[in-house]
Amino acid sequence: MNVRDLPTPALIIDVPAFEHNIDAMSTALPGRRLRPHVKAHKCTALACVQAAAGHLGFTCATPREVLGMVAAGLGDDLLLANEVIDPARLRAMSAAQESANITVAVDSRETIDAAASAGLRQVLIDVDVGLPRCGCVVADAGHLADHARNAGLEVRGVMGYEGHLMVVPDRAEQRRQVTAAMEQLATAHADVGGDIMSAGGTGTYDLHDVATEIQAGSYALMDSYYAKLDLPFRQACFVVGTVVSRNERHAVADIGLKALGMDHGNPTIDGASVWFCSDEHITFAATDGRQPAVGDRVSVVPAHIDPTMAMHEVAWLVRDDEAIDRWPIDLRGW
Amino acid sequence: MNVRDLPTPALIIDVPAFEHNIDAMSTALPGRRLRPHVKAHKCTALACVQAAAGHLGFTCATPREVLGMVAAGLGDDLLLANEVIDPARLRAMSAAQESANITVAVDSRETIDAAASAGLRQVLIDVDVGLPRCGCVVADAGHLADHARNAGLEVRGVMGYEGHLMVVPDRAEQRRQVTAAMEQLATAHADVGGDIMSAGGTGTYDLHDVATEIQAGSYALMDSYYAKLDLPFRQACFVVGTVVSRNERHAVADIGLKALGMDHGNPTIDGASVWFCSDEHITFAATDGRQPAVGDRVSVVPAHIDPTMAMHEVAWLVRDDEAIDRWPIDLRGW
Repeated sequence: MNVRDLPTPALIIDVPAFEHNIDAMSTALPGRRLRPHVKAHKCTALACVQAAAGHLGFTCATPREVLGMVAAGLGDDLLLANEVIDPARLRAMSAAQESANITVAVDSRETIDAAASAGLRQVLIDVDVGLPRCGCVVADAGHLADHARNAGLEVRGVMGYEGHLMVVPDRAEQRRQVTAAMEQLATAHADVGGDIMSAGGTGTYDLHDVATEIQAGSYALMDSYYAKLDLPFRQACFVVGTVVSRNERHAVADIGLKALGMDHGNPTIDGASVWFCSDEHITFAATDGRQPAVGDRVSVVPAHIDPTMAMHEVAWLVRDDEAIDRWPIDLRGW
Repeated sequence: MNVRDLPTPALIIDVPAFEHNIDAMSTALPGRRLRPHVKAHKCTALACVQAAAGHLGFTCATPREVLGMVAAGLGDDLLLANEVIDPARLRAMSAAQESANITVAVDSRETIDAAASAGLRQVLIDVDVGLPRCGCVVADAGHLADHARNAGLEVRGVMGYEGHLMVVPDRAEQRRQVTAAMEQLATAHADVGGDIMSAGGTGTYDLHDVATEIQAGSYALMDSYYAKLDLPFRQACFVVGTVVSRNERHAVADIGLKALGMDHGNPTIDGASVWFCSDEHITFAATDGRQPAVGDRVSVVPAHIDPTMAMHEVAWLVRDDEAIDRWPIDLRGW
């Protein structure tokens, strides 16, 4: 099917750009140096491509992502990089250990006890390296590791996500701050032990000397937020819409708040300025003043790829304007 | 099930507040004076309550909403208040006319021709009353009505959504601007004819003297954006999460960007300040400095109800902390 015949709004993946990104990252961080984060795409078909590129370990944000990856045969080494205390979900992941290798992040006695009670076997100690979110203080990491080992858990090491440093305009300054954050993680690691120091993301993937693995995810598809950085990854994901209304000043396409992650602001359209988004609409104006016609297609670059993916049921793979495949976004929800 | 045992993030509807809102609106705008907008909730079970309250006509934003309402037996008088030119979707709605009464908005010759070609029978002329989105200019409305009638369509009247006036801080000023917008719609109506002048929303539901029906939707569940106005509707929808991490300064719950419409900014938590949201987390600090414990529940008020509803598979109905029913959000997607 030609891309102009897809029902809209249509989430599309530009195959050459996607393949470029997969290749560029697997060259920079081969094999287990990258632990791709599936929260960025929520798609096991896409994860299969990452696995085929040599990345057999994956990062997940939710138990549903973990269980979906196991069901897809991608359970070689799954890290739930998030704290969970729901006994039912922990037990479901515990049961999945029959056919998968699962490690969960913990940052408190409560999360350790919940993991142990559910029968999970492996944990990482999640350490606060500056992002005010999850993670214990550095000084507590060793004590929590002791508590986990006393509870019968294997402690594989530490993780510390420097999310506050993903987009720092000056690269040298960014490197300096990442290095400082990773010194904190290394201090915690010295007290914790284990083989793993997991950190990083798309914005800092090439700034790590200490971490043993990087949790990047957005690199595969990209968005206008990460495009501000001078990264070697190309925009590979677009939401394609149909112009349904127009006048001399602006045009309106059928892509709105229910098709776009909006926390990073408005999406962008090449050659146009975006005025605003409504539930099912994007209002925009062509820069050259020649507004598109009703029925024309328009391609929108999401400002934040992760929540955008979670809003769509399917992604269309497009090469040379032909939709050559259709991937379910099968890890949505909780 | 007690609300504290629901898997989180859980979208909940507070039944007494919801019932209050339904009653308050059906008292103010009884029967067909209100044409509830289903885009605000995307839930046929909720629409059934609105129908039981006397509102038998509904407003939809997508063909999927129209077809889902027909399948649910709620096809008495459905208005697609949006322009669509996709022939397959128009034909699907045309086929549904066997068992439903469907009217679609049009604002151009292209959308009129597409509707007629697909076999649809009834249209409203969508008029620009100041919101830069869809809608023809006032002077074109009569010509478009002629074109529609020449194409064999019944023209039921006009619609004009004054979305730019939903949240004007000063009520007197808001009324003045709504009146001016509706004068435009009345001018168009004089050229178009038909019985319907459809307009309005939750923020202006009580400011209309000219429109024959009001398209409000958010009133049923509300959000922190509409809460800024002094409306007689109560907050009836919350996203409940579990605290998964905490320290002396802040706490983190499992409600993030994939569970919250973010285009109106951060959600709110009673008694806390919200710092930021990540994909699966909300970081917040209790105002009194006593951060909740790991495992505690937290209740979040969405900033924008419409996209929030579209992110969830189900809503739990809660009365006295008991989940008494479970409604599928069955009109999601396109």
